[in-house]
Amino acid sequence: MTTGVRRRMGVDERRQQLIGVALELFSSRSPDEVSIDEIAAAAGISRPLVYHYFPGKQNLYEAALRRAADELAERFLEPHEGPLGTRLLRVMVRFFDFVEDHGPGFSALMRGGPAAGSSTTNAMIDGVRQAAYEQILAHLGVEVPSARLELVVRTWVSLAEATALLWLDGKRVPRSELELQLVHDFAALAAVSAAYDDELAGIVLRVLEQEPSNGPFGELLTRLGTLTAGAPAVPPQRLP
Amino acid sequence: MTTGVRRRMGVDERRQQLIGVALELFSSRSPDEVSIDEIAAAAGISRPLVYHYFPGKQNLYEAALRRAADELAERFLEPHEGPLGTRLLRVMVRFFDFVEDHGPGFSALMRGGPAAGSSTTNAMIDGVRQAAYEQILAHLGVEVPSARLELVVRTWVSLAEATALLWLDGKRVPRSELELQLVHDFAALAAVSAAYDDELAGIVLRVLEQEPSNGPFGELLTRLGTLTAGAPAVPPQRLP
Repeated sequence: MTTGVRRRMGVDERRQQLIGVALELFSSRSPDEVSIDEIAAAAGISRPLVYHYFPGKQNLYEAALRRAADELAERFLEPHEGPLGTRLLRVMVRFFDFVEDHGPGFSALMRGGPAAGSSTTNAMIDGVRQAAYEQILAHLGVEVPSARLELVVRTWVSLAEATALLWLDGKRVPRSELELQLVHDFAALAAVSAAYDDELAGIVLRVLEQEPSNGPFGELLTRLGTLTAGAPAVPPQRLP
Repeated sequence: MTTGVRRRMGVDERRQQLIGVALELFSSRSPDEVSIDEIAAAAGISRPLVYHYFPGKQNLYEAALRRAADELAERFLEPHEGPLGTRLLRVMVRFFDFVEDHGPGFSALMRGGPAAGSSTTNAMIDGVRQAAYEQILAHLGVEVPSARLELVVRTWVSLAEATALLWLDGKRVPRSELELQLVHDFAALAAVSAAYDDELAGIVLRVLEQEPSNGPFGELLTRLGTLTAGAPAVPPQRLP
């Protein structure tokens, strides 16, 4: 473009370019407010040419959403090395990077605006949730989870979503605090459920044993110790 | 009806009857699978007469949803007496009663099927979430919450939703366990956030001080004590 000469793109290349341009526009405003004319202008092509590649706005929206979904699912990939709390924290930092980059579009999608709510978009959202769920299970070293462990991991994924959506609405709490808080929340939800489930109790204890005292989970233990020290005394017992 | 003589209903009475019949059908199956013919048959009137009262299925669906939303919001009302954990547990029992009564319809709505996802249905869902949020704040004795307290309460409401939806999908964990677990989750999420927020720390300590050791929160403290006793030792400290 800098030479003033427009290079002719191949079909797939043009489609990918349009998806990129559309994703940027759909991310930065509510997707319902983005027109095909704007997308055409931003891509430097004519409106009919956009329709040549994508039959309609919903179609282009879904293609952009597919790319965003793949990108988000990728951010849950994390090497299986080091303490779990530290891994989870890195994942949360990348998750909030994504949420920040795609803020208005992410809100509009998750709050179910007119552009959202189709069975295709719902299936993509569920696909990302499922990918996140499977990644966490893999980090826990569990292939076939108990019903209670499944519940802890899936509800934690929904908690991360809800926390990010509330954060976007005004950003009144620093995101770095929420990233750490979600790691702590994971441990807290697992600890609560561990009371009902031997498998989960075993996992929680195994994870905690591998945590350095200066890591995110170590910090949580200090905080819970602090809080319970302020409450009526209960005799501590080891889990069986 | 037992006399075989059909009493003539007034307009409002007939509308209310139709809403009741529709709510029952929309609750027991996915609303997309319920036809106006079925609703007419269940109400004992003709199909054209249904259309006389409600211009279309979406209109009747939204009226039924409005009744369900009011009913659900009512279940969060709880006298401001006794320990908070016990109050929350009673609310959770009523919440699961509702979820159980309206299972398939609740799932379809919250998972965003074709009948759901309109701006009207989304506004009703948000209205129930807001009512739940305000009730919890009132129980905490807080009128203007900090951003972090707002986050804790709102994300906990979303956690209750997510937990109920997962429970409906197979009912593999007893609901009474999940009702108690959600009460514990509330305390756990509040405790995690209390580390960042003096107001929240004050509330958590005040609430815990009023809890009997055999109430739901007392039980949680025992469990957390049990779990942290199995982890690397950290020096307990009182909160400032």
